[in-house]
Amino acid sequence: MNGQMMQLPLLISSLIVHAERHHPEQQVVSRRVEGDIHRSTYKAVAARSRRVANVLGSLGVKFGDRVATLAWNGYRHMELYFGVSGSGAVLHTVNPRLHPDQIVYIADHAEDQVMFFDLTFLPLIQAVAGRTKTVKHWVAMTDRAHMPADPKVPGLLCYEDLLDAASDTYGWPEFDENTASSLCYTSGTTGNPKGVLYSHRSTVLHTMAAALPDCLGVGAAETILPVVPMFHVNSWGIVYLAPMTGAKLVLPGAGLDGKSLYELFEGEGVTISAGVPTVWQGLLAYVDANKLKFSTMRKSAIGGSACPPAMIRKFLDEYGVRVIHAWGMTEMSPIGTAAAFKAQHVSQSAEQKLGVMATQGRAVYGVDMKIVGEDGAELPWDGQASGDLLVRGPWIIDSYFKNEGGHPLVKDAAGHGWFPTGDVAKVTPEGYMVITDRSKDVIKSGGEWIGSIDLENIAMAHPAVAMAACIAAPHPKWDERPLLVVVKKPGAELTREQLLTFYEGKIAKWWTPDDVVFVDAIPLGATGKMQKNKLREQFRGHRLPTA
Amino acid sequence: MNGQMMQLPLLISSLIVHAERHHPEQQVVSRRVEGDIHRSTYKAVAARSRRVANVLGSLGVKFGDRVATLAWNGYRHMELYFGVSGSGAVLHTVNPRLHPDQIVYIADHAEDQVMFFDLTFLPLIQAVAGRTKTVKHWVAMTDRAHMPADPKVPGLLCYEDLLDAASDTYGWPEFDENTASSLCYTSGTTGNPKGVLYSHRSTVLHTMAAALPDCLGVGAAETILPVVPMFHVNSWGIVYLAPMTGAKLVLPGAGLDGKSLYELFEGEGVTISAGVPTVWQGLLAYVDANKLKFSTMRKSAIGGSACPPAMIRKFLDEYGVRVIHAWGMTEMSPIGTAAAFKAQHVSQSAEQKLGVMATQGRAVYGVDMKIVGEDGAELPWDGQASGDLLVRGPWIIDSYFKNEGGHPLVKDAAGHGWFPTGDVAKVTPEGYMVITDRSKDVIKSGGEWIGSIDLENIAMAHPAVAMAACIAAPHPKWDERPLLVVVKKPGAELTREQLLTFYEGKIAKWWTPDDVVFVDAIPLGATGKMQKNKLREQFRGHRLPTA
Repeated sequence: MNGQMMQLPLLISSLIVHAERHHPEQQVVSRRVEGDIHRSTYKAVAARSRRVANVLGSLGVKFGDRVATLAWNGYRHMELYFGVSGSGAVLHTVNPRLHPDQIVYIADHAEDQVMFFDLTFLPLIQAVAGRTKTVKHWVAMTDRAHMPADPKVPGLLCYEDLLDAASDTYGWPEFDENTASSLCYTSGTTGNPKGVLYSHRSTVLHTMAAALPDCLGVGAAETILPVVPMFHVNSWGIVYLAPMTGAKLVLPGAGLDGKSLYELFEGEGVTISAGVPTVWQGLLAYVDANKLKFSTMRKSAIGGSACPPAMIRKFLDEYGVRVIHAWGMTEMSPIGTAAAFKAQHVSQSAEQKLGVMATQGRAVYGVDMKIVGEDGAELPWDGQASGDLLVRGPWIIDSYFKNEGGHPLVKDAAGHGWFPTGDVAKVTPEGYMVITDRSKDVIKSGGEWIGSIDLENIAMAHPAVAMAACIAAPHPKWDERPLLVVVKKPGAELTREQLLTFYEGKIAKWWTPDDVVFVDAIPLGATGKMQKNKLREQFRGHRLPTA
Repeated sequence: MNGQMMQLPLLISSLIVHAERHHPEQQVVSRRVEGDIHRSTYKAVAARSRRVANVLGSLGVKFGDRVATLAWNGYRHMELYFGVSGSGAVLHTVNPRLHPDQIVYIADHAEDQVMFFDLTFLPLIQAVAGRTKTVKHWVAMTDRAHMPADPKVPGLLCYEDLLDAASDTYGWPEFDENTASSLCYTSGTTGNPKGVLYSHRSTVLHTMAAALPDCLGVGAAETILPVVPMFHVNSWGIVYLAPMTGAKLVLPGAGLDGKSLYELFEGEGVTISAGVPTVWQGLLAYVDANKLKFSTMRKSAIGGSACPPAMIRKFLDEYGVRVIHAWGMTEMSPIGTAAAFKAQHVSQSAEQKLGVMATQGRAVYGVDMKIVGEDGAELPWDGQASGDLLVRGPWIIDSYFKNEGGHPLVKDAAGHGWFPTGDVAKVTPEGYMVITDRSKDVIKSGGEWIGSIDLENIAMAHPAVAMAACIAAPHPKWDERPLLVVVKKPGAELTREQLLTFYEGKIAKWWTPDDVVFVDAIPLGATGKMQKNKLREQFRGHRLPTA
């Protein structure tokens, strides 16, 4: 017997419809690649999203077709989020930091029909336009006045011309909420990128969970600025979450340097932001150097990579900003855990609270997680045992687009499928999860595992260290031993011995790195993560002094 | 083309599973009808809910069967919430304030198989046990030591005996999320009660929406006490919301007087509560009389009836408690709107903020609303026009159980069904809704509508008034004119003329009531609402001085 409640599918269009009806005048502010600050409202974004839907029809896009974007965080990109998915097509957000060969590969794999791009990426489009197999239309996301004189892209269309010619009358279609809504390729370090195909249902449920008080905690009185890009896991859902909650949305465009971000934070009264640690490093360096303060910012969600505890402390102690340490991945829409307090932490000391904030957090409702040993058996949550981390939930991947890589899920005794994250983690008795490593980055020393992230966090706490990566180096007796690769802060003095001494008393002695090398830069991937596979390649022949 | 995310149904069992895994030690505290305070945890509630599921199997309850409860807010009732719905049966919460004839009617209509009841309600059970057609088992929710010596209920079972004999090993089944989960009858003022049949999907979605920052705003560090009963619209979802968020849950049992509630608030550190205005009146009267303060309470959700602005002001000014004025109904699971601020209100004056808090609020995501005129055309949101209020959303009724009363929805031009709430409302340009009346309570004076709620709110702001109802009285010239029925505060002095003078300058002169009558009590319905139909009956022959 079924319940007798209304059967309304959870559709992405419902988010912008809600904002248009209940928060029409709320602002959407964007820093444009054209150089200025643009002001819009949910009412305007909704109307222009309907124009986008009509434009897609006129360009021959059909239900289920893939439509690609190569764009920064901005209102036009947002209009495509709702116009494309809302009309039943699939929004394929392409990471512009990928190599042109990879972009051609994923555009072909996705069978993209139209590619929308910000002017910044014209050179990239010129490099791929003649090579993709399925793209019929290339659209520059700008107005006629800013169209390039000689674009060298045959038949290039102008976004604002298309919207001007289209009607803003359009009825969002209703369809099965399991319909594909958007597609994001993982920037795997080996092999071809694999596509994660989200559904309307998974997106709406993830958005509701992300707005909960113990996750991002967003209501209509907040102003949220996603530094995390819309081309990467849908800016952690923030471009959906803002219209759902009626929050003011500030989109930073290409201005991701410390100065540009700080000016936007202050100018627009941003209260909540979200990004990866490397972006915050740039922001904090700028704020430090100029002796500035944040006058409105209260919360900063940090994920994508583990946030060094030193950064959490600095945000809180010096700027009064509460870091929400979170964890997730492209395959998880992306949010899985967030480090919100439980009641017993509220009265704890500052030091104990920092201990909680430094974990990746506890599962948000909708996500379950477990850690398992090499035999697949579940390990205890004792804060000690670490094992492979597996997750399940309605916004977690079942299989990759076109079933690349087969069926990734691992079945438990009850027949439930769990997604193996590739992370190695431990969980405290209170349910707070700590990533100790990527399973491929773990250092296996004499049959025991050494987590590289703990070692990196200690190095990052040293005032002379700008960035640190810990990788396995070959060792004749122990198989592998930790090697620390360090970028010093500009002008800072630091020796190998000083840094190794810094580890004393902070960690089991046998975990101490066997060597330190100083480099000018650590290679970062398309999403700002350190590329340890490249470092391992680079230091494959490194001879440890202990060898 | 469908997305490729995990297909996991939204089931009520997932809420208690989440709490058991991620918040096992969080407390569930109950005031028992046996007289003491009982302490449990989500871990224990989860284990005992599994025992309940096994007990139901042994009692012959099958998938989809209805299982009834007649019980206060307490941990055993909570175990039934999860044990019954989680196992695929339907939890039918019966309102013990109904007349025995009505209870027999709805038990027969629902075809209840088992009836669980708190000892308080033994006399009620004795009055109905011989008369219902389908109930096979009667279970007293107590232990062996408290079982009545001569219950006069044949074959009466003891809850704790049943649980002791059952295993706590049970695998929650997976099934379609649209499966019926629970059943609540509306206490209609005319005709037989009608059943609202919730689904697992509608319940889980409503729970997520209710926990959002702009609705109840609940995280794991909060302590929430639902005064609103679990026998009435599932305590506004709070018994689901607490395990979903990991909040501490405090259940007040039968102790709904001011003293009992206050002691529990203070003793357990309650931070958020929820209830109807009449309950808060008792609490405030007790706190006032004893010159007490709330040391932990921050937020109080008020709904069920319009909250008088004077109460909102008193909570805030004298006790520092923020009222979340909310609106909904049994047919809406129940939450539809909540009066959370938008950004522009934060910097407003206290008086302006009170104006926002006095509205019923704006639609939470998932709910859409509109007001329509007598011709069915949508009216503007200008804060002036008032009309019939209609709603739609995934936790709003499609039709009543067994299709009593046919198909209540009203179709719009796009073919979308809207539920007519029976309320008359206006909406401000910012989207805040104000109930001006129940459509059946509206006073039609010379072809114009007078909203009775505004008139009651003014009377309630008078220091000598304890309760006020405004009803239509017959008038030879204007058809109907407002008659104010007032209960004075104990010992207070107030004349008809003084109260009518109090209206001057507060409202259009022609809205002023034509007469005032003082009574000892105003009849309240089973859910604490004033029964204006009874008052209209009582004053049908009242001759207005203006007639």
